[in-house]
Amino acid sequence: MRQEFESRLLENCVTEISRLPGIGRKTALRLALHLLRQEPATAMSLGNAIIEMRKGITYCKECHNISQTELCPICANGRRDHSTVCVVESVKDVIILENTGQYSGVYHVLGGVISPIDGVTPDMLEIDSLVERVERGGINEVILALGATMEGDTTGYYIYRRLAPCTDLKITQLARGVALGNEIEYTDELTLGRSLKNRTLFSDSIAM
Amino acid sequence: MRQEFESRLLENCVTEISRLPGIGRKTALRLALHLLRQEPATAMSLGNAIIEMRKGITYCKECHNISQTELCPICANGRRDHSTVCVVESVKDVIILENTGQYSGVYHVLGGVISPIDGVTPDMLEIDSLVERVERGGINEVILALGATMEGDTTGYYIYRRLAPCTDLKITQLARGVALGNEIEYTDELTLGRSLKNRTLFSDSIAM
Repeated sequence: MRQEFESRLLENCVTEISRLPGIGRKTALRLALHLLRQEPATAMSLGNAIIEMRKGITYCKECHNISQTELCPICANGRRDHSTVCVVESVKDVIILENTGQYSGVYHVLGGVISPIDGVTPDMLEIDSLVERVERGGINEVILALGATMEGDTTGYYIYRRLAPCTDLKITQLARGVALGNEIEYTDELTLGRSLKNRTLFSDSIAM
Repeated sequence: MRQEFESRLLENCVTEISRLPGIGRKTALRLALHLLRQEPATAMSLGNAIIEMRKGITYCKECHNISQTELCPICANGRRDHSTVCVVESVKDVIILENTGQYSGVYHVLGGVISPIDGVTPDMLEIDSLVERVERGGINEVILALGATMEGDTTGYYIYRRLAPCTDLKITQLARGVALGNEIEYTDELTLGRSLKNRTLFSDSIAM
């Protein structure tokens, strides 16, 4: 690898920062030089926060949300409704849905959506673990809270088919108050909260 | 401070990342979740690179460029021309000028330019230390390699006035091949290399 800067420490730091998505070497250099201009404590806090976060955070064995313990605080919370599981694409979606304050059930994080173009197949997502979780029993309703996109719809339909053999299971989806083509994470909390309340039977949407 | 996320470690990391210039909380969360999806080694490398850079890099006592030693490698290099000092706004400008491969003298990093709007006054910059450095003797030429902006011109003129009492000192500036209104760091290396070679007497530009 070509060394661009005199200082190996700067070179190394710029290289590491530029590995982050959406950050090129120019931006990485700007950030590194910014850190050099600040008090040493600023860079120490940032570096340590990154290291400690990665060391301390793992994934919940039940819902695959991020967690500092084996079971995440949501799964471990006895006051939440464990018979209702909200299926989401990512950890970010859990954070956003929690912020609506409208939901008291638990989650299941898929870790993505089915996307042939990006090479994401169902076996790469936490779908088998969702089916197993439902088959273990105790779950009355699965809410598909996926983006109103081609990939979100495909994933929802795939999960619906996989869960179809489970009798007595209600499979619902967020009310389509979410504008078509939009991702969950860019939807405002009011719309999200309302679409959680007005969720409809998945089977109805197929009939339409 | 409001805690937005369940995990204190995530909260802390997002807060620290969002302190970086141009990075808001949404981007910081995206970066933090990206790091959580990668191998632990990726986050460790990034965190350690930031910490080690900040611990290991200080400023050269002579030219105020970044350095891992008391004197930076450029100032400590006996084969460079120590009688020619190139005055630049920032560390980034040193990196860019070095990349032209056209310059064999030494540098003096001001740490900014005079800007009344941003509240940057001459005493906040490394101008006194430049004057002292010239007064110590052994310097024949000071090249003002500042951006062709209002602030760059003001700073250049201020330094020119401060150094005017030093007889036998040639004060030059980069040839104005640099398009007016542009910053040094966004100029291509070819233009920069040429404007270094065609540098003109500062007094001539005032006469024009």
